[in-house]
Formats: sequence, C-alpha cells, structure tokens
Amino acid sequence: MKQITKFSEQTLIPEDLLADRIKNVPRSFIREILKVAISPDIISFAGGLPNRELFPADALKECAIKVFEKNGTDALQYSNSEGYLPLREYISQYYAGKHNIRVVPENILITCGSQQGLDLLGKVLINENDEVIIEEPGYLGAIQALSVYGSKFMPVRLNHRGMDIQELDRKLHTVNKIKMMYVVPEFQNPSGISYSPETRTAIIDLMRSIPAYIVEDNPYIDLRFQGKGSGSFYHRAPGKTILLGSFSKTIVPGFRIGWVVATDKLMEKLIVAKQATDLHTNIFSQMILFEYLSHCDHEKHIGKIIEAYGQQCRIMVRAIQEFFPSEVMITQPLGGMFLWATLPDHLSSMELFRRTINKKVAFVPGNPFYTDNKKYYPTFRLNFSCSGGSDIQEGIARIGSSLKELIMEV
Amino acid sequence: MKQITKFSEQTLIPEDLLADRIKNVPRSFIREILKVAISPDIISFAGGLPNRELFPADALKECAIKVFEKNGTDALQYSNSEGYLPLREYISQYYAGKHNIRVVPENILITCGSQQGLDLLGKVLINENDEVIIEEPGYLGAIQALSVYGSKFMPVRLNHRGMDIQELDRKLHTVNKIKMMYVVPEFQNPSGISYSPETRTAIIDLMRSIPAYIVEDNPYIDLRFQGKGSGSFYHRAPGKTILLGSFSKTIVPGFRIGWVVATDKLMEKLIVAKQATDLHTNIFSQMILFEYLSHCDHEKHIGKIIEAYGQQCRIMVRAIQEFFPSEVMITQPLGGMFLWATLPDHLSSMELFRRTINKKVAFVPGNPFYTDNKKYYPTFRLNFSCSGGSDIQEGIARIGSSLKELIMEV
Repeated sequence: MKQITKFSEQTLIPEDLLADRIKNVPRSFIREILKVAISPDIISFAGGLPNRELFPADALKECAIKVFEKNGTDALQYSNSEGYLPLREYISQYYAGKHNIRVVPENILITCGSQQGLDLLGKVLINENDEVIIEEPGYLGAIQALSVYGSKFMPVRLNHRGMDIQELDRKLHTVNKIKMMYVVPEFQNPSGISYSPETRTAIIDLMRSIPAYIVEDNPYIDLRFQGKGSGSFYHRAPGKTILLGSFSKTIVPGFRIGWVVATDKLMEKLIVAKQATDLHTNIFSQMILFEYLSHCDHEKHIGKIIEAYGQQCRIMVRAIQEFFPSEVMITQPLGGMFLWATLPDHLSSMELFRRTINKKVAFVPGNPFYTDNKKYYPTFRLNFSCSGGSDIQEGIARIGSSLKELIMEV
Repeated sequence: MKQITKFSEQTLIPEDLLADRIKNVPRSFIREILKVAISPDIISFAGGLPNRELFPADALKECAIKVFEKNGTDALQYSNSEGYLPLREYISQYYAGKHNIRVVPENILITCGSQQGLDLLGKVLINENDEVIIEEPGYLGAIQALSVYGSKFMPVRLNHRGMDIQELDRKLHTVNKIKMMYVVPEFQNPSGISYSPETRTAIIDLMRSIPAYIVEDNPYIDLRFQGKGSGSFYHRAPGKTILLGSFSKTIVPGFRIGWVVATDKLMEKLIVAKQATDLHTNIFSQMILFEYLSHCDHEKHIGKIIEAYGQQCRIMVRAIQEFFPSEVMITQPLGGMFLWATLPDHLSSMELFRRTINKKVAFVPGNPFYTDNKKYYPTFRLNFSCSGGSDIQEGIARIGSSLKELIMEV
C-alpha cells in the first residue's frame, strides 16, 4: 500500500472566490459537541439519534436479500427522480390510514432524508432576503438548509401549546417578503412540545390571508407515547401546506430516505430541483424499505420504540424532579426524543455545559437553536432516546450538581 | 386498501412564490425523450446508462450480507457528512496507484453521485451571474446543477483534441466574474472526445493567471478501451483543480455514490454545504461499496465492461460508416459510452429525431447540450453502452435511411 502524503496547499486560488450564500451558513455546532461527546466514558444526552438497539436490522437484512432476488438489476440501475412508485403508494396509503390525510403518489417526492426536502424547498422558494417564520427555539437543520438560500428568519417564541399566537400575529403585520412558515408540530426538535388543536387552528386562520406556505415537518409523528394527536396542518389546509416526512426516526436513518408532499405546480419545480441536485435517491435502499414496510410488522416495531422512549422519558423527567433545582423548568414531552430545560434568565447553558462535560456528561446548549446570535441562552436540549435508565439517572444527577454550583456562584 | 382520490388544488398560493433561480433551470429534455424511448420495441441509443447486464449483482449481494454481519447497526445509524473513512482511504489509494494523483482522505468528500458534487460546488462558489466556462457541447447535468445558482455560461467549442484553445484564449479576455471552468477530459459526455496532453497543458497555462477553479469531472476515466491516458488536470495543477469522481459508471449507479476532491479551505465549506443539503450520504451503500472494492476483483470486472463497450463502439462506428451518408461526421471515442454525430449545418437533428422515432429508434438531439438556446442544432448523441451488436446495426441502419430522406428533401 502506497503512503500518500498531503499535498501542501498553494495559494493559487484567492479566498474570495466563495459564494456569498455559504458565508452565512452556520457550521453545525452540535457536530462539534458530538465530537467531544463520542468518547465512551461520557454519558451523552447531546445526540439527536434514534436508538440503534431498536433498528430492525435482521428484518432489513432479509429484505435486502429479497430485493436482490426480486428486483434484480432494477435495484442497481439509475432510476427516476420522483422516487420508487410502490414506496410513494405506500406513503399515500399510510397517510390515509393513519393520519386521515389524503395525498396521491404523484404529489410525493422521495428525498435523501427530510433534510433534503428542506434544501429543495429553499432552492425552489427562497430568494435572497425572503422571510421565513420559524419556531424559537427552532430546528437547526432547517436553519442551516434555508440559510444557504439567503432566507431572513422571523422567529416566533414557542410556549407549551405551540407558537405564541400573539407574537405571530404581531410579526405577521411586519412581514414584507414572506415565503414560508416552518413548524414541527409534534414533539418538536429541540423543545419536545406539541401544538394544541387550538393553536393549529389559530395559526391557519392567521396565515390564511398571507400568500405563503406552511411547511409542516413531522419526522416524529409516529413516536407518540402518551395522549393523542391533534390532526395535521396538512389535513386542515392541504393547498397551503407542504408536508415533510421521514423513515429515519422509525426504521433506519442511514438509508437517508424521507419525502416531501406538495401540490402539482410546486411538485413540478421540486422534481426539476431534485434532478439538478442528485438525479434521484438511492433506489436499492428505497426498495429495501418498501419490502420491509409491505412484509414486516412495522406497527409492532414502532410499538417497541414507543415503549422504550416513553419509559426513558419518564425516567429522565423523574430524575430531573429529583436532582435539578426547582428554578429549572422543563417541558413534558408526549413523544419524540427530546426535552427542553430552561434555567433562570441570567444563567448560561454554555457555562453549564463546560462544567458538566468535566463531569463526563454532555447535552446541547440552546445556542444553535436560535437565529439571533446572542452570547448566551439559559436553555438546553436533553435527548432521551439513546440512554438506558441508569445512565439517565446518573447523568441527570451530575448535571443537577453542576446546576447547583452554577446557581450558587452566579 | 383505501382508495385515495386526488386533492383538487386550490388557488391559495399565488404562482409567483417561486424563487427566481428555479425559473431558469432547464427541465431535463433527455428525461422526456427517455419516456418515449422506454417502450420495449424501440432501439434506444438515447440513454446515458451503464449496461445493467454488467452490474456485479451477485458480488454486491454477498457484500450487502457481509455488511450486516460485520458493520451491524453502524451501517444503519446516522453517519458523518464527509463520508465513510475506509471508502475515502480506498479512493486515495486508487488515485495514487492508478492515476498518479496524490490526495489524502480528508480532501475527499463522498457525495450522492457526482451530480451532487456539482450542486455543492454551485452552492459554495457561484454567485448570481458568475461566469462558468463550459464545453460546447457540454454535460447537461452540469448545466442544470449550476443554472440553479444563477451561473452565466461561457461555452467554448470542442474539437477532437479538447476545448478550442484559440476560442478559450479569446473568451478569457472577456470574462469578468469567472469562478470556474468545467471539463470532462476523458470520453466526454456528450461528444466522446478526450483531451490531448497538449490541450491540457495549454488550458492550464491560460488558466494559471486567472483566479478560478478548473473542475475536472471524470466519471468515465476507467472505461478506456483504446490508447492510453494523458494525465489528469488535477495531477498537473492540484491547487487549482477540483476533481469529481463516481462509482456509477464502473460498479453501480443506483447507490448514488460519487466524490469531490478539493483543497482544505474549499473542503471545509463543501462539508458545511453537504450538512445543510442532506446531512450525509447513505452509509449502508458506502459500506457495501467498500466491501466490494476491498474483497472482489474490481479490475477484472472493469475489464469486462471495457471489452463489451469497446466492441459495441466498434460495431457502431462500422455501422455508421456503412449506413450514414458521407456528409455526416462522427467522433471516434477511445472509451466511455457515447459518440457524437454532426450533420451538415443546415440540418436539424430534432427533425431527424422525429423521423427516426417513427422508425422505432431513439437518440438525443444536440439541443440540451448547448447553453445558447438556438432553434436547432445539426448534432446528436449516440449511446453505445446499452445495446447489443445486432440492435446497433439495425438501429444505425434505420437512422441512416432517415438521414438520407432528410438530406434529399431539404
């Protein structure tokens, strides 16, 4: 094997060749944190990963073998940009059967995870300085994807029922070139909250007169471990809503398979954008997923995930009640993978992070979930999908002791 | 199974919500042609697909099973944006061993096909109206991907040795905000030509003083069935060249795995763009490819492809000499999947297409490979990778008879 040494970079190319758009895109701060948190002696609540012990690995292996046998070279050749039709038909049936949403396969585009759905929507909808209403705190991946296209974020604070309607109403009176509102209505990342039916209706009423899309991103919708759903935005306002979905949280993230639901005119442009971006999504993996969904007991599998995540969430909430000072407020998620903690206003979660990482516990300080670049935020995100009960108790206890030190000192 | 009816689109959203950038992106014309050409009774030279009969399907099946056994849930979980390190190490070794190119794994980013490499380069480098030097005729996928970011194309005519150096020199004196030159130096799509060593050297000399990148797209480089290589642009000017590569033409297109080679500063921004675009490339398929490359006889496999494509190309060239009128000029590819025909100037290849499609033969008229939107072009592309010898002879004979009619009538 040949030893390759690094080519020493010459200065043939000046720095200012970069496009303006990329200068404003935040590098993923979480990624940096995860590098610290990857060490095996760290108890990490920092990730946003589904629990790998629950992946249906054996079933997927059988399905992969079947795809080679049944689909042959169709699974290996170039394919169409829209995505594998049987998979889109499955998604259509899934929406009808499980969420009372009516959508035909030709209005579904398969994407490389719902992250790519966001990229394509940015490509197709956002001009420089177009406004995007986003939750505060909001999903980092959406902030990143839409930043690329020069969008100007108008954050609206979240409360326990969803976006703050008064603030939304006020902000909507100041918008100028609004293109979309981005919402994660079920078990939001990072906050874990879900929108109440009243908030959903109020948002649609406010948005009705405004020529902009509602982008409803719903990767966690099937991970509900308590209570019942409030009905999707898409169901309430189908002509106005774009729906994003994903198999990453319920089956397998490594395949990178998600989808976008959009009406005909927008879909036509999304397909052009998809072609220009990467021609099509990995067809072999689409076929494996379809094989899995049509022959394995997917509901039973989701049941297992829900049971595990629900239990881990309850353990975390109880540990927080035991170990955190009473000044710290938390959300009480009914599903998903995250909960959100709020310190007294004058405390920095980044400072807390520096202390807990010395105690070998990681979480994500609030910073990357805001669009206004303050120096510090008193909030942080805790992931409960990837840790067992004793790690949760131990990790929360350590954060609790750092919290007490911090509160005493400041 | 529930019958889903189509939601009738309401006019809640005005048309002008679209971003300006998407309005200028050509829909793939080839895609439309392929829809016509897909019927089984049509002899199609229109596609740009590798021959599916040569996919190493059995070996990939064994590798997929091994990945489940060896990599376990690592093959299913979220992964890093840069791509699977062992695969990037393999690519580094491949370049050193086979193409005398020195590149370390950290300067290699795995992408969803090299099409995504183009998208990421557009994202990171192109501001609205930045100029891109492109071959004429040029690769449609590059035109599409870079159009999205508002690039202004400066086409430079190809001759049998590569870009026309006089025209390039002249055009370089008129450029204003040039960001890159895009070249496919081996067995170019659509023309099938390869750059001579002198043309490569002359281009680099001309570009040396100009602060812009050379993007060297080399998906066909290992499909040479005649002659020997002229050494890559990257090898000659590594600090100035961005290299794109792909496994789609040699192993499997359906996995959508390609790569970009770039120097440190640019790579850092490409990784941010990759994160924002789709987080990372399908890790399961990256691992299968690595398993294949490290345990199967890849060189022997490529040998089979080269033998088949070389033979099919020779049959096509001979059939053209037999059946086409002598006014028609063709390129004589030494590798790859395409050859290019040029009619007398006053004839339209689109008109020829309309005639041959009635005779159940398809090809791609020159139109989508130009950036200047003329009404007709006297050129067309013929693919030889997907048809057997007798189909090639029969198809070329039918095109020949349409050609004779066309020349007689006009």
